[in-house]
Amino acid sequence: AKLWGGRFEESVTAVVEKFTESISYDKALYKHDIRGSKAHASMLAKQGMISTSDRDSILEGLDEIERKIEAGEFVWRTDREDVHMNIEAALTDIIGEPAKKLHTARSRNDQVLTDFRLWCRDAIDTIAESIKRLQISLVKLALNNKDLIVPGYTHLQRAQPVLLQHLLLAYVEQLERDAGRLLDCRVRLNFCPLGACALAGTGLPIDRFMTAEILEFTAPMRNSIDAVSDRDFVLEFLSANSITAVHLSRLGEEWVLWASEEFGFITPSDSVSTGSSIMPQKKNPDPMELVRGKSARVIGDLVTLLTLCKGLPLAYNRDLQEDKEPTFDSVKTIVGMLEVSAEFAQNITFNQERIQKALPAGHLDATTLADYLVKKQIPFRTSHDIVGRAVALCVSKNCQLKDLSLDEMRSLNPVFDEDVYDYLGVENAVKKFSSYGSTGSACVASQLDCWVTTLGIDKSKP
Amino acid sequence: AKLWGGRFEESVTAVVEKFTESISYDKALYKHDIRGSKAHASMLAKQGMISTSDRDSILEGLDEIERKIEAGEFVWRTDREDVHMNIEAALTDIIGEPAKKLHTARSRNDQVLTDFRLWCRDAIDTIAESIKRLQISLVKLALNNKDLIVPGYTHLQRAQPVLLQHLLLAYVEQLERDAGRLLDCRVRLNFCPLGACALAGTGLPIDRFMTAEILEFTAPMRNSIDAVSDRDFVLEFLSANSITAVHLSRLGEEWVLWASEEFGFITPSDSVSTGSSIMPQKKNPDPMELVRGKSARVIGDLVTLLTLCKGLPLAYNRDLQEDKEPTFDSVKTIVGMLEVSAEFAQNITFNQERIQKALPAGHLDATTLADYLVKKQIPFRTSHDIVGRAVALCVSKNCQLKDLSLDEMRSLNPVFDEDVYDYLGVENAVKKFSSYGSTGSACVASQLDCWVTTLGIDKSKP
Amino acid sequence: AKLWGGRFEESVTAVVEKFTESISYDKALYKHDIRGSKAHASMLAKQGMISTSDRDSILEGLDEIERKIEAGEFVWRTDREDVHMNIEAALTDIIGEPAKKLHTARSRNDQVLTDFRLWCRDAIDTIAESIKRLQISLVKLALNNKDLIVPGYTHLQRAQPVLLQHLLLAYVEQLERDAGRLLDCRVRLNFCPLGACALAGTGLPIDRFMTAEILEFTAPMRNSIDAVSDRDFVLEFLSANSITAVHLSRLGEEWVLWASEEFGFITPSDSVSTGSSIMPQKKNPDPMELVRGKSARVIGDLVTLLTLCKGLPLAYNRDLQEDKEPTFDSVKTIVGMLEVSAEFAQNITFNQERIQKALPAGHLDATTLADYLVKKQIPFRTSHDIVGRAVALCVSKNCQLKDLSLDEMRSLNPVFDEDVYDYLGVENAVKKFSSYGSTGSACVASQLDCWVTTLGIDKSKP
Amino acid sequence: AKLWGGRFEESVTAVVEKFTESISYDKALYKHDIRGSKAHASMLAKQGMISTSDRDSILEGLDEIERKIEAGEFVWRTDREDVHMNIEAALTDIIGEPAKKLHTARSRNDQVLTDFRLWCRDAIDTIAESIKRLQISLVKLALNNKDLIVPGYTHLQRAQPVLLQHLLLAYVEQLERDAGRLLDCRVRLNFCPLGACALAGTGLPIDRFMTAEILEFTAPMRNSIDAVSDRDFVLEFLSANSITAVHLSRLGEEWVLWASEEFGFITPSDSVSTGSSIMPQKKNPDPMELVRGKSARVIGDLVTLLTLCKGLPLAYNRDLQEDKEPTFDSVKTIVGMLEVSAEFAQNITFNQERIQKALPAGHLDATTLADYLVKKQIPFRTSHDIVGRAVALCVSKNCQLKDLSLDEMRSLNPVFDEDVYDYLGVENAVKKFSSYGSTGSACVASQLDCWVTTLGIDKSKP
Repeated sequence: AKLWGGRFEESVTAVVEKFTESISYDKALYKHDIRGSKAHASMLAKQGMISTSDRDSILEGLDEIERKIEAGEFVWRTDREDVHMNIEAALTDIIGEPAKKLHTARSRNDQVLTDFRLWCRDAIDTIAESIKRLQISLVKLALNNKDLIVPGYTHLQRAQPVLLQHLLLAYVEQLERDAGRLLDCRVRLNFCPLGACALAGTGLPIDRFMTAEILEFTAPMRNSIDAVSDRDFVLEFLSANSITAVHLSRLGEEWVLWASEEFGFITPSDSVSTGSSIMPQKKNPDPMELVRGKSARVIGDLVTLLTLCKGLPLAYNRDLQEDKEPTFDSVKTIVGMLEVSAEFAQNITFNQERIQKALPAGHLDATTLADYLVKKQIPFRTSHDIVGRAVALCVSKNCQLKDLSLDEMRSLNPVFDEDVYDYLGVENAVKKFSSYGSTGSACVASQLDCWVTTLGIDKSKP
Repeated sequence: AKLWGGRFEESVTAVVEKFTESISYDKALYKHDIRGSKAHASMLAKQGMISTSDRDSILEGLDEIERKIEAGEFVWRTDREDVHMNIEAALTDIIGEPAKKLHTARSRNDQVLTDFRLWCRDAIDTIAESIKRLQISLVKLALNNKDLIVPGYTHLQRAQPVLLQHLLLAYVEQLERDAGRLLDCRVRLNFCPLGACALAGTGLPIDRFMTAEILEFTAPMRNSIDAVSDRDFVLEFLSANSITAVHLSRLGEEWVLWASEEFGFITPSDSVSTGSSIMPQKKNPDPMELVRGKSARVIGDLVTLLTLCKGLPLAYNRDLQEDKEPTFDSVKTIVGMLEVSAEFAQNITFNQERIQKALPAGHLDATTLADYLVKKQIPFRTSHDIVGRAVALCVSKNCQLKDLSLDEMRSLNPVFDEDVYDYLGVENAVKKFSSYGSTGSACVASQLDCWVTTLGIDKSKP
Repeated sequence: AKLWGGRFEESVTAVVEKFTESISYDKALYKHDIRGSKAHASMLAKQGMISTSDRDSILEGLDEIERKIEAGEFVWRTDREDVHMNIEAALTDIIGEPAKKLHTARSRNDQVLTDFRLWCRDAIDTIAESIKRLQISLVKLALNNKDLIVPGYTHLQRAQPVLLQHLLLAYVEQLERDAGRLLDCRVRLNFCPLGACALAGTGLPIDRFMTAEILEFTAPMRNSIDAVSDRDFVLEFLSANSITAVHLSRLGEEWVLWASEEFGFITPSDSVSTGSSIMPQKKNPDPMELVRGKSARVIGDLVTLLTLCKGLPLAYNRDLQEDKEPTFDSVKTIVGMLEVSAEFAQNITFNQERIQKALPAGHLDATTLADYLVKKQIPFRTSHDIVGRAVALCVSKNCQLKDLSLDEMRSLNPVFDEDVYDYLGVENAVKKFSSYGSTGSACVASQLDCWVTTLGIDKSKP
Repeated sequence: AKLWGGRFEESVTAVVEKFTESISYDKALYKHDIRGSKAHASMLAKQGMISTSDRDSILEGLDEIERKIEAGEFVWRTDREDVHMNIEAALTDIIGEPAKKLHTARSRNDQVLTDFRLWCRDAIDTIAESIKRLQISLVKLALNNKDLIVPGYTHLQRAQPVLLQHLLLAYVEQLERDAGRLLDCRVRLNFCPLGACALAGTGLPIDRFMTAEILEFTAPMRNSIDAVSDRDFVLEFLSANSITAVHLSRLGEEWVLWASEEFGFITPSDSVSTGSSIMPQKKNPDPMELVRGKSARVIGDLVTLLTLCKGLPLAYNRDLQEDKEPTFDSVKTIVGMLEVSAEFAQNITFNQERIQKALPAGHLDATTLADYLVKKQIPFRTSHDIVGRAVALCVSKNCQLKDLSLDEMRSLNPVFDEDVYDYLGVENAVKKFSSYGSTGSACVASQLDCWVTTLGIDKSKP
C-alpha cells in the first residue's frame, strides 16, 4: 500500500502506476536523499522531536541502505513510487517504528527539492572540472603548435592570417564564460528548501538554519511557497549547459571541417576516428560530429523544461516531476561532450606543411595592405577601394598581392613604395598585428601565459 | 576488433567508445534489423550473389539470434558499436563464413534507415490505435452523460451553456486529425532506402524492388543520396506527435481544472488518483497533470531533432545517430499519455448535481437573449448593447437575466415581450441552438451517432 | 468606445490597450476578413436575416474599404483593437445602420479563424510555388552540368564519386516531399469555422454550407467548440515550414562549403555575393549563410506556437491571439529562403577543372574495388578488409589505388587480375554503378528526365 | 554602390538585396552606433590617426545625424544595407572626406558587436527597472490585503491555508532572482569588442582601453576572434528573459484562474478587462492571458538564437545577423509583460467575503491536525494515517474536521483531547505555523518588512 493511502479505498491501476512512477530514474538522487534525511533526523533530535536513540537508528539504517544501494543489493520497487518512498519504506523494513518519525515536519515537496538542488550543485562542480580539463587540453595544443599560422575565416571565406594559438584561445575564452555562468548559477541555487514542507512550512519546532548548514547551503530559502514551486534554478542550469553546448558544437564543426580532405589542417589519430562498414578507405572524425549533434539534445532538454514550467499555477504540480530526466540527460550529455572534446584535442596532429602550402591562397594580406595605405595617410575608405582593385588585378593575373610589381601598384595609387613588400605575404601580415587582443605574436604569447598560469599548467609536460 | 578496421592501426579510446556507441539504445531496432537482413539475404540469393545454402544459413542464424534476444539470452557488446554490428558479428559467431557475405551491396547507412523506417511505421500504427482507444473512451463518456449541460468557457470565463457531449466530441475531432497526420506521414515515409548503400548505390546486381516488396514498402526510394541523408520522415513524425501532445496537454489542463474543489465537475476514482506524503486529505489528479507535463518532453524531442539536422551538409553525418533516442522517447511518451488519458476517462464521475447548481452563475444565456432581439429585427450590435446593459442591471441587483421583470427589460428596449422567457435560463438557451455543428441537442446527437459508427462502438456496453 | 462596451464603465488603460492590440499586425488579414464578411452577408440575406438592400450596402461598403486599404488611404486605429473591429467600425462610418447587422450570428472567434485559415491556404499555395521554382532551378543547374563528377561525402569525408546531377536531385526529392506535406496540411485545414460563433453555434437560421462553399472550403467544421479553440492547422503548417527550413539550411551549408577556397567547387557571381567593410579581397556567399541562419527562425516560430498552445483549456483563450505573428514570420521567411536559394542556384558556376583535379584524392574508388572482389566470389567482409589494407598501402606510398601494381595487389589477395584496372579511378568507379536510384549515368539520366517532365521544364531554355 | 564594392563588377540582385538587408530592423541600434563611432573617432584622434579637426567634423556630423534620426528626418536606405553603412554614408554626404577615415582600424564585425552589447546593456537596465516596478506592485497588493487567508494549492487541489501576502511574496522572490540573473549577465557582457576589427585585430596604433573606458565597458575583450564570433552574451540574456517569462506565465495562469467564476478570488477592474463581440455579459482578464501566452514567444526567441548559433565555425558568419530581431522581440515582449502585470496588480480587488466563505472546503487543516498528533508523540506516519481516516469520515459525513466530536476522533486514536480544537479550522491552522519562511503571520510580516525596505516602498502611500 502507498504511504499516503489513509483516505484511499482503492489502489491505482497498473497503467497509472507505470505512467506516474519516477523510481526508474529518480533513484539517481539516492545519495542526496540519504544525506538530506540524515541532516533532517539530526535536526529533529536536536530540537527534541525525536529521541537520540531514534536518531541513531535512523542514521545507521540510512547508512545500511546506502551501502546496499552501492553494492547493488538494494531492490527498487515501482509500487513504492519514488526514491523517497523507497528509502523510507526500506528504512521501516530495517529499523521499524523510528522510521515512521523521519517524515516529521517534511513533505516530499521540500525533500525532493533539497535532493535535487544538492544533485545539481554536485553536477555543476563536475561540469566545471570538465570545462577546465578541456581548456587545459586546448592550451596544451596551442603550446605544442607554436608559430603556426592558419587562415582566419569569416563567412567561411579566408579573411586574415591568424596564429593557431590565437584561434584556440578564442575557445578557451568561451569556456571560461561558460564556467562563470555555472558558478553564478551555483551561488543562486545554493539555498535550502528543507522545512518548506508541503508549501506552507510547519508549526513544529524545526531549525531550518541547522539543516541548511549541515547540507552546506548558504541559508534556508525565505519563502516556503517559492521553495516548493519554482524550478528556475534548473532552467538556469540547463540554459548554461545549452550555451556551452552551442560553443562545443562550433568547435565540433570547425574540427570536422579541418579534418576534411579539402581543408586538411588536422589528422586525428586512429584512436579517435572510426571507419565505414562499406567503404574501406574511410576514416571519420565521429566524436566531433557527435559533439556537434549532441548539442541539439542539450538544447532540446532546455526546451522541455521551459515548456514544462510554462503556465503552471502555484505551488507544486505533478508536472514538475518531469524536471529530472531532462536535467540528468543534459548533464550526462554535456560532460560527455566536454570529455570527448578534450580527448580529441589530445589526439590530433596539425599538418603544418600542408597548411603552409595553402596559406597564400585567399589574399589574406589584403587588409594589412590597406593598413599600409592608411599609414601613408590615405583615408581608410579610399585605401579599401585601392586594395580592392589590387585584388581584382591579382584575380585576373592569378597571382598574389606580393607578386604585383611596384609599378602595377603605383598605377593604382602613387603612394606605394618599396616598403610595401614588408606588409605582404602571410608571415609579414601576421607580424604587423599589434593591438591588444590581436593575433600579433606578442599579444598572443602574453594571453597564452595568462592561461597557463590561470589553469595551473605545467609547460614542461606536453 | 571493429568490422571496419582494415586500415586502422589503433583501437578507439575508452572515452570515445563510450561516447560514440549506440548499442545501449538502438538494440530496440533488433526485430526490424533482422527483418531487413532476411529480405536482403533472400534478394542476394535470388540475384545469384550468394548461394541458396548461404541464404538458408543466414536466415536460420538470424532466427536463432531473434529467439535469443527475445529470451534474454543475447549478449549485447559495446565494442560491437551498434545493433547492426552486434547482430552481424553474432551471426558470424554462429554460422561462420556465409555471414561475411550478408553485408554485400549494403552499408550501415541504408541498413539503419531501413530499420528505422520500419520501426517508425510500426510505431505509427501503435499510436493510431491508442488514439482510437482514447476516442472511444471519450465517446463512451459522452454516451454515459447524456443531457448534461456544462458551462462553455472562453478566457476561462463562463461564456455559453454547452452539452458535455459536445465538448467531449471537440477532443474526438482533434484526435481524428492527429490520426490523419500520422497516416499521411506513414504514406510518405513508406519508401525503401535499402540498396542506397553508403550513398551512391552499387554496381552489384541487386533488385531493390524485390526487397522493397518483401518489406511492404510502396517502392524503393528514387535517389540514393537522399535515401541515406534525409531525416524528414522522423521530423514529420515527431511534429505529428507534438501536435497530439499539445492536444492532450489541453485535455490534461481541463480535467485538472474540473477536478479542483472550485470547479468540482468531476471526481476521479481513487484508482487514478494519488495522495500526499504529508497532507492526509489530498487526492490529486496526477495522471492528467503528468499528461500535461509530458507534452513538454514530446515538444523537446522535436526541437532536438530539428536542431540536430539543421545545417548538416550531405550525405550521412554521424550527428544523425542522435535521431533515435528522441524518437523512441517521443513514441513511448505519447503512447503513455494516450493510454493514461483513456484510463482516466474511464474512471471519472461527473458531479451532475453540483454542476447544475452552479450553472446559473455567469449569465450564460446572454447571447441567446441577444439572438432573441435579432429575431425581433434589432440589429445585432444594438442587441449586444441592450443585453450588455441588462447584464449590468443583473450584476447590480445580483440576479440572473431570467429574474428581470418584463418592465425592467422594456425599460432597456420596448421590443421585449413575454416570449423572452423562453430564451432565458440555461436549459432554454441550449434548446435554442440549431446551427450545424452547434451544441443544440439534435446536432450533437447526430454527431455522436457518426462517431459511434466510425469508431465501431457497441452502445449496449458502457 | 469599444464595440463590446455595453457592460463596461471604464475604458482600458493605455498600457493595456498597447499590450493587447493586434491591429499592428493582423491588418495583414484584411483581404480575407473582407472576403469572409461578404460571404457571411450574402448568406444572411439569403436566409432572410438581413434585407437584400442591407446586403448590397454591406458589399459595396466592404469593396470601398478594400479599395481604400490598397490605396493606402485607410486609417487603422489602435483603439479599434483588431482588423475585424477596424473594418466593421469603418463600415459603420460609411454605410451606417446596416453595418450593425453584419455581426449577426458571428463572433470574432469564428471570424478570425475563417480569416486565418483562408490566409494560411493562400500562403501554402505561395510557398508551394516557390518550392517548385527552386526545384526547377536545381534541375536546370543539373542540366547545365552534365557528366560532372564530384566527391560524395559522408562525415564530410570523401566517400564515393557521384554525378553532380545525382546530388542536386537529392535536394529536388526533399523539396517534393516538402510540397507534399504542405498539400496534406492544406487538405486538412480547408474546413470552415464560420458559424461556430463564440463557441457554441447559434440559434439563428444560418446556412454554414453556403458560406463554406462561397469561400471554397470543403465543408463547414463539424464541431463549433473545436472550430474556435484548436490551432493544430497552424502547428502543422509551421511544422511543414520547419522541415523545409531544415532542408534549405543543409543546402545553405553545402553551398557555403563549396564556395570556400578549400572546396572551390563553385563560384557565385558578384550579383549574389557581398564584400567586407574592412577586408578588400572578400567575396562572401551571404545569401546562403542567411538561408542557413534563417532556418533557426522558422524553427523558433514553431516552438513559440507549440509552447503557446500547450496547456490551454477549451475553448478560445486570448493567448491564441499570439498565433499570428509567428505564422506571418514563418511564411515570409521561408518564401525568402526559397526565392534566394533559387536565385543563388541561377548564379553559380561550377569550377569543373578544379574539381576534376582534386577528384583523385580520397580513394573514392575503394568501394568499387571491394565490389570487384565480391564479383570474384570473395565474401564482402573479407573484400572490405583486403581493400582496407590496399588503402593503407596507398597512404604509406602516398599514391592512388590505381597506381598500385598488380603484384602489390596480389600480395594482398591472389584473386586480383588485370581487369581490376577497369574498376579503378573515379571515372571508372562512376561507370560501374547500376542499381536503381544509384549515381550510375543511366539511372541519373532517367531520374532527371522524370523531373524535367514533372516540373514542365523546357530543356531548350537554359 | 556598396562601400565594399572595390573588387565587385556587378551589384547584387533585388532579391538578394531584400533578403540580406538588415536596415529595416538594425536601425534600432542607431544611438549606440553613433556613440561607438564617437568614441572611436576620439581615440583615432588621440592616437594621431586622424586630425583633431577631422575628429571634430566627425563628432558634429554624427550629432547632426542623431538629431535628424530623432526628428524623423533621416532617410534610411536599403541599398546601404545596415545601420552602420547608412550612418557612415550619411556622414560622408554631410562632412565629406573626413568621414572616409572613420572606419580606420574598425570592421563592421567589431562595430556591430559594440553597438549590440551597448544596446543589450541598456535593455537589461530597462528590464531590471520593470522587474522592480512589478515587485513593488505585488508588495503593495500584499500590504493592502493584510490578514487575508487563501487556500494554498498543490496539484490545483486545496492543500493548506496560507496568507495571501505569503503567496504574493513567492512571486517577489522569483523576480528577485530574475533580476539577479540579468545583473550577472550584464557583468559578463560588459567587455568591449571594439578594435577586434574583422577578427584579427589591427596593426594600426589604436588604444582599446580608451574606447572601452569612454563606452563604460569594464575592459576590452582579450581575444579578437572571440570578440567577433561569439554570441553567448545574447544567449544568456535571452535565457534570463525566458526564465522571467516562465515566471510571469505562472502568475498569468494563477490570476486567470482567480478571476474565473469558479475561483472568484479577484475582480479585475474594467480598465484591465475586455469584452466579447458577441457575448454581452463577458468580462475577460485578457492582459494576463496574453502575459501567459507571450511567454511562448520569449522562449521561441531563445530557441531561434540557440539554433542559429549551433554548428557555426569561427569566426563571423552572416547567419549571425539574425541575432538581432529575436533579441529586440524578446526585450520588447518581456518589458510589456512586466508592465502590464504591474498594471493588472494595481487594478484588482480581492473578494474577501467570497474567499472566506469558501475556505472551509478542502480540509485545509488536516496537516495541522497531523502535527497535533506528532506533538502528542505519535510518529508522523501513524499520525498521517489517523488523519487520513478522519478525513474519510468527514467525507462520508459531509462535514469538516472541526465538526467531528471528540468521541469520533478518539475512536480513531485515544490520544485526542479537547485541545485538538485549537488546531482545527483555517484560522487556527494558519496561526500554528511558526517555522522560518512559513506562512505564519509573524514570519510573513517580517519578510514583508524586508521587502518594503529593500524596494524602498513608502507604506503610507497605497
